[in-house]
Amino acid sequence: MRKFLLSLLALFIGGTLSAQQALWSGSELTSPEIHPDRRVTFRIAAPGAERVELMGDFLPTQKVVTPQGEFDRPGVATLSLNSDGVWEFTTEPLTSDLYAYTFYVDGIKTIDLSHVYLIRDIASLANYFIVEGGAGNNYVVKDVPHGTVSRLWYPSPTLGCQRRMTIYTPPGYEAGNKRYPVLYLLHGMGGDEEAWLGLGRAAQILDNLIARGEAEPMIVVFPNGNTDLQSAPGESKEGLYKPTTRLPRTMDGSYEESFPDIMRYVEQHYRTIRKAEGRAVAGLSMGGFHAMHISRLYPDCFDYVGLFSSAVGRERPGIATYQEIPATLREQMRQKPALYWIACGNNDFLWEENLRYRTQLDEMGFPYTFHESEGGHTWSNWRDYLTLFLPMLFR
Amino acid sequence: MRKFLLSLLALFIGGTLSAQQALWSGSELTSPEIHPDRRVTFRIAAPGAERVELMGDFLPTQKVVTPQGEFDRPGVATLSLNSDGVWEFTTEPLTSDLYAYTFYVDGIKTIDLSHVYLIRDIASLANYFIVEGGAGNNYVVKDVPHGTVSRLWYPSPTLGCQRRMTIYTPPGYEAGNKRYPVLYLLHGMGGDEEAWLGLGRAAQILDNLIARGEAEPMIVVFPNGNTDLQSAPGESKEGLYKPTTRLPRTMDGSYEESFPDIMRYVEQHYRTIRKAEGRAVAGLSMGGFHAMHISRLYPDCFDYVGLFSSAVGRERPGIATYQEIPATLREQMRQKPALYWIACGNNDFLWEENLRYRTQLDEMGFPYTFHESEGGHTWSNWRDYLTLFLPMLFR
Repeated sequence: MRKFLLSLLALFIGGTLSAQQALWSGSELTSPEIHPDRRVTFRIAAPGAERVELMGDFLPTQKVVTPQGEFDRPGVATLSLNSDGVWEFTTEPLTSDLYAYTFYVDGIKTIDLSHVYLIRDIASLANYFIVEGGAGNNYVVKDVPHGTVSRLWYPSPTLGCQRRMTIYTPPGYEAGNKRYPVLYLLHGMGGDEEAWLGLGRAAQILDNLIARGEAEPMIVVFPNGNTDLQSAPGESKEGLYKPTTRLPRTMDGSYEESFPDIMRYVEQHYRTIRKAEGRAVAGLSMGGFHAMHISRLYPDCFDYVGLFSSAVGRERPGIATYQEIPATLREQMRQKPALYWIACGNNDFLWEENLRYRTQLDEMGFPYTFHESEGGHTWSNWRDYLTLFLPMLFR
Repeated sequence: MRKFLLSLLALFIGGTLSAQQALWSGSELTSPEIHPDRRVTFRIAAPGAERVELMGDFLPTQKVVTPQGEFDRPGVATLSLNSDGVWEFTTEPLTSDLYAYTFYVDGIKTIDLSHVYLIRDIASLANYFIVEGGAGNNYVVKDVPHGTVSRLWYPSPTLGCQRRMTIYTPPGYEAGNKRYPVLYLLHGMGGDEEAWLGLGRAAQILDNLIARGEAEPMIVVFPNGNTDLQSAPGESKEGLYKPTTRLPRTMDGSYEESFPDIMRYVEQHYRTIRKAEGRAVAGLSMGGFHAMHISRLYPDCFDYVGLFSSAVGRERPGIATYQEIPATLREQMRQKPALYWIACGNNDFLWEENLRYRTQLDEMGFPYTFHESEGGHTWSNWRDYLTLFLPMLFR
């Protein structure tokens, strides 16, 4: 047995030491360490460093003033050096959620290489972890049936190209012949067809809610809402380019006009319920803007609409897609959607914009449900909104 | 227009500055910069650092001696500080391939945060980039039809659990009713159902070879070969655990014995060609060990076998699965497989083991094709072997 283990070890080390797989082996440290009382300890070995800091969205935020207004940025904590050359910091007990962080070693940003779980948000990378015991319970993978997540390409005749999307099919989809309702779930500015699956934890939320009978089994489609791009960075012929803060091609009508291409592909290739009662559209921020317009432009298509922290008040004079808003909203109202759900954080920079949109709907007599939350324009809110929204669909 | 752009900018900045999405914005630097002559420049801003190094598999390797033998580890280069506080290093012209690297700032390993393209290899993270102009042309996403990549869970009655696998279906699969051949492509020790899709670039290689007519359109299944685990790290109920160098549960017969569970699921849920001429099995390192045993244990199942840098010579006394090897190989030989392809680098620590296996086959008169390459136990070789192997299948 000992000889076998040695031979196995040689195979393993042979692989990891070899030229390609490299000696960039993982760290021995445990970081982050989530304690039973929900305090979290971070560790990084940097014996020669003079100052090590941690930036995380679980630390008290700092106000930042920019020409565009005042915003919260994540807080910073200073780590302490212990006798082993390891810098450490332990938080207060955290509320259950998914959190992100990075280190700064002598002012140079780095990630925690003791923890291989990273997420890209637009052009930046951060580590993430999940504190269980509350909302976070829906974000972890549980021992429940799992849906299938597929990345595929569909033709968009309207845009004249192939584009990538992600699709979640619920547990049991492959085994049967049943038809399922479909939610189109749209990302925000800078996001792409991966955003809701990454920081949004949509697949885990769906698996967990469906397993508990709190959401109907459904297909969820995650398209790419930037019509300048075919896909998320690195997944198209543009190669491994640097994602920048380049503004997306959006709010020019092209996404809304080409949206039927997405629906056509999904309805042709998946066992969907092809009527309004089997369709929902929702989005966050820019995706909420899209969901608002798509649902009024195709008013007989969607019985369920969700606008999460949405940019619902943008006027676009001169673009045909965005004219006749009151008339099309009235037409949508006549179709009596089963749910028109608006959610916003009372600290969101779009809060006032959402209140103005509510006034517009109120004046028309357009029925909707409003959900006010704490906090601002954050993934924490969007995961929460999704968790609240899903149980209201298709039942 | 200016007002619209400002409003869009506010939306974008609002999102990125907000608590959750953070001010951990990307770097302004371009790194790596791939020059037309295939030299590559790396940059990192670290004005206060004393020494910045780069470890990459494109640098001359260093010899490392361990109790298990002598291995190559990636080379290290020292960066120079320019007047802007940016450390830089430019390579010699590189051979076209996919490469990985990390930085060391004053001895502390960090990744290149100017470049969001990262890959996890077992317990370590590294940046990667692709130099085009040769083999690398097959590893980039081209403007060709793309297959669909799905992550799904299948039941394994033999192991008594649900397990995760990745499946590639070729372009056109969804649109038609055609049946396709299937390649089962197995990973090495420490790998999982994501390995061939990550450093292996299997989806890109398949898309590109199929587009040029050099490979038949086929389904490719990437199972998880460690029967101790249900999935890749972070994708199971074990949570965001630290992948360690814990040895996998392997070579105890359980994977080979439970392999029919995988085939059954695939053949029930995909339009496959359900006979030997429509099936191939191949793997790298430990996956080659698996492919060798699976193909002889189910000798009428696979017409095509690929053993890439394989651990083909391991004896496992006392385990029924690994007894009767000559007899089962003779049975496999009687089935006249269309291709039994063995590839190994002449610098691989398994080179001698592969030569001994060849001798064993020669003595039996078992026909096979041997491909000798330069280099060792590397992803560079495995991508290359896959590129050579695919065109020989199913035609």
